[in-house]
Amino acid sequence: MIEWKNLDQLESYKKLQGLKDQVELKSVMAGSNGAKRVAEYSVPMSNGMAYNFASKQVDDVVLEALQELADEAELTDKYSALFNGEVINTGEKRLVLHQLTRGQLGGDVIADDVNKREFYVKQQERIAEFANKVHAGEITNEAGEKFTTVVQIGIGGSDLGPRAMYLALENWAKVTGTFKMEARFISNVDPDDAASVLAGVDVAHSIFILVSKSGTTLETLTNESFVKDALAKAGLDASKHMIAVTSETSPLAKSADYLDAFFMDDYIGGRYSSTSSVGGAVLSLAFGPEVFARFLNGAAAEDALAKNADIRKNPAMLDALIGVYERNVLGFGTTAVLPYSQALSRFPAHLQQLDMESNGKSVNRFGEPVDYVTGPVIFGEPGTNGQHSFYQLLHQGTDIIPLQFVGFKKSQMATDVVIEDSTSQQKLCANVVAQVMAFACGKDDDNRNKYFAGNRPSSIIVGDQLTPETLGALLAHFENKVMFQGFVWNLNSFDQEGVQLGKTLAKKVLSGDTSDALAAYVKLLDI
Amino acid sequence: MIEWKNLDQLESYKKLQGLKDQVELKSVMAGSNGAKRVAEYSVPMSNGMAYNFASKQVDDVVLEALQELADEAELTDKYSALFNGEVINTGEKRLVLHQLTRGQLGGDVIADDVNKREFYVKQQERIAEFANKVHAGEITNEAGEKFTTVVQIGIGGSDLGPRAMYLALENWAKVTGTFKMEARFISNVDPDDAASVLAGVDVAHSIFILVSKSGTTLETLTNESFVKDALAKAGLDASKHMIAVTSETSPLAKSADYLDAFFMDDYIGGRYSSTSSVGGAVLSLAFGPEVFARFLNGAAAEDALAKNADIRKNPAMLDALIGVYERNVLGFGTTAVLPYSQALSRFPAHLQQLDMESNGKSVNRFGEPVDYVTGPVIFGEPGTNGQHSFYQLLHQGTDIIPLQFVGFKKSQMATDVVIEDSTSQQKLCANVVAQVMAFACGKDDDNRNKYFAGNRPSSIIVGDQLTPETLGALLAHFENKVMFQGFVWNLNSFDQEGVQLGKTLAKKVLSGDTSDALAAYVKLLDI
Repeated sequence: MIEWKNLDQLESYKKLQGLKDQVELKSVMAGSNGAKRVAEYSVPMSNGMAYNFASKQVDDVVLEALQELADEAELTDKYSALFNGEVINTGEKRLVLHQLTRGQLGGDVIADDVNKREFYVKQQERIAEFANKVHAGEITNEAGEKFTTVVQIGIGGSDLGPRAMYLALENWAKVTGTFKMEARFISNVDPDDAASVLAGVDVAHSIFILVSKSGTTLETLTNESFVKDALAKAGLDASKHMIAVTSETSPLAKSADYLDAFFMDDYIGGRYSSTSSVGGAVLSLAFGPEVFARFLNGAAAEDALAKNADIRKNPAMLDALIGVYERNVLGFGTTAVLPYSQALSRFPAHLQQLDMESNGKSVNRFGEPVDYVTGPVIFGEPGTNGQHSFYQLLHQGTDIIPLQFVGFKKSQMATDVVIEDSTSQQKLCANVVAQVMAFACGKDDDNRNKYFAGNRPSSIIVGDQLTPETLGALLAHFENKVMFQGFVWNLNSFDQEGVQLGKTLAKKVLSGDTSDALAAYVKLLDI
Repeated sequence: MIEWKNLDQLESYKKLQGLKDQVELKSVMAGSNGAKRVAEYSVPMSNGMAYNFASKQVDDVVLEALQELADEAELTDKYSALFNGEVINTGEKRLVLHQLTRGQLGGDVIADDVNKREFYVKQQERIAEFANKVHAGEITNEAGEKFTTVVQIGIGGSDLGPRAMYLALENWAKVTGTFKMEARFISNVDPDDAASVLAGVDVAHSIFILVSKSGTTLETLTNESFVKDALAKAGLDASKHMIAVTSETSPLAKSADYLDAFFMDDYIGGRYSSTSSVGGAVLSLAFGPEVFARFLNGAAAEDALAKNADIRKNPAMLDALIGVYERNVLGFGTTAVLPYSQALSRFPAHLQQLDMESNGKSVNRFGEPVDYVTGPVIFGEPGTNGQHSFYQLLHQGTDIIPLQFVGFKKSQMATDVVIEDSTSQQKLCANVVAQVMAFACGKDDDNRNKYFAGNRPSSIIVGDQLTPETLGALLAHFENKVMFQGFVWNLNSFDQEGVQLGKTLAKKVLSGDTSDALAAYVKLLDI
């Protein structure tokens, strides 16, 4: 029987707290010992990738303590409970089944009298069939012409994940001949967002995907009306241009307003929905169902690795535990995610939601306040761009910010130039390894302005190339990392009560029910 | 004579440290006192804007201490010294003259035997003339056809600021009839960045701007070659498609490789260069020189306000001081910038560079280590999108993150829909004020999962509409805020030595000069 305990109730955590000054990174990364660490402190991921943690402030003693913590906190048992369909989302009394959209790790999960794996697969098949018909010109606009653009209308998890995944594969798809349709995204309630996207697409040849699990998201329904207005103004029948991705019980599910509806359910949180119909519809339309299936396979392979109780064989769990060590023992409050890949330009924004919305909490899974810090702030931009921006603070600022690099050996488009005897791709890779070492080891200089203290920890995930498979694996790695950290902190990583108060107050403002300071702010903004 | 002292040498700082628990935000924002604060804790900015700090953890006692700090640290005297041409960038022994690109706040600044204001104005005039000729079809491609697209090649300050400003005004320009040419940006050394941008533009009708002050930036020169290859493959003469923005002493300055060259100088740091030729060329080509001039006027008006020694009349200085109070007295390590405007989608990324590269330092302006924390981590995304992403942590996480909201009464495009009796713009504004109040006052609830502690400080900058003028003012506000914070922390905010070590190590990697851990990482990435 699993026990859900707060972190500070665990014996292994007390031991870990005694290991605060265990490793001086600058020393251990110097000389041949550094080379040994790079070779040995690496955990294979799926799809030929690896999680390398040589430049983290850990050694075999810390790793042993982290293994003890993993064991005592029963992390992989909790993961088993999750994928076997226990009610892990305690606050909302829901199962947590996003892994089931890409594979089955345990027994059949039956909920609401339905085999959930079969349900998710069925939705994928329905989407594949629909997408194939659109691509084949069997589903067309009213004039019988092919759709050329797909526009996703959604916010939060219905936007950030799918958008980041689309951008990650757009160029890859274009050079591999799998590109089918341009995708665009409307998310913000700011009217300029929808107006601008609509001004930039050919609405007569656009298919719109309305994504809202509940069918009641304010921003999304508002933007749907925006789009319907635009279609009406163009003399088009909106119901022939829109599909819905929603839950079966939502008002959108069986509406004549849509060409078709594809389903998700309450067991998949928005920020975990990229591999469900939420990502499936737009990615299958943009790149074809086969590419989406490859993306799911990549994620499934990584999910399988996360079952391993040995931290040296479970990259997501090790990454999670090192993060806990950095947050709760070393005291670092922020983590930067730095992919050396322009295609991953919005991947940090997705991880920002995934991590901060899952673990930015002060109460445990039973609703009791915890006495330790939980989820860090996550931010990031692609390298090398970030090097010419905020890296100054990372190198020489007064706070230490742990870093998570991602790099690929090959570019996606394979168009390159040789300047000064190296390709751009070689320069890109040279920069990422140079940064890892610069952060770890620093540089002495009598001129303190040019002095680098070093001892700034980073990890790097390395892959051969950013493809549907490696993207899926990367996504699953971070989803599972966040899940394991939630287990360690004893949080419910699958609700988001913190978003409710703002919604309630915004409704009050719009209904004129304000007084005192709120009324004064309403006046300030002339609402 | 100005004295440059460390923060912890100031008497007023000791006093401020005694005011740690001075204000319980939740209490002071309740009832009629809250309304009074919203009305009174507001400082007019230029161009009809206002900086409202009612929901910051300050009261009249704290404000008095901040005024004393401003006085003792001689903040406005230091600003005068800067705009009058003293060597404020001590490390590199340079003047700091970006304000002079948009106005003249003090006496003539003569450097290198040149009146610098006249020099910057002359570059603006040359750019205006060039842009007008392009728009009029007097400067064309070899086939005599008009250029339709401008592509900026630059990284860091040559990318983030100009890109953020372009995106901020793109839709505004389209609806006001001032839009001239689409702009695109190539920055990353990742070959997929250039390849993807080039695949998406009509190179035969594109004019490229190569931006590098030194003329030696690795990424930028590499991407120039990339572009030249693409032009050559299209049978085009690259020298008829490129202009340079550089310093007069750079190798690019008088090259036959370019149609023309426009100049900046060593007295304008990259991250402060949006109002120089670096932003001027691309923005004048995209929107016309008149729009760029309006942007400069907006910034100039805000710069003038920053001369005021009274913190209640100097919004940038007050914002800076409240930030120092939050960082050094209240102990908050991160600040989020949250513009409720989709057009400002990349403004936080620009501020991230501006702030973190300027003040992410551990040594003072004399190269001596400081004993206090300096610049915070800056991150942000536009609202309402962020509400459905990382706001969970901001509301209910274990750390307090100070927030900087920005909101406008009117949208840019004026296309809107009424849903449930309100427009999207009203919903947008309702959300931002709701968030300010939710963060400040929280909500009691017996269910701790639905409990909001409140006491989370925020400020809001309010404007009528995002226009060239208000954008300029907003930019100048943050530039001046960062400058004042640098003065308080006694830093040199205008160098960036922290970016050098990575460059040096990357060169070593590319020349094969590696050993130990660095060699092992090179192997890991197959470089």
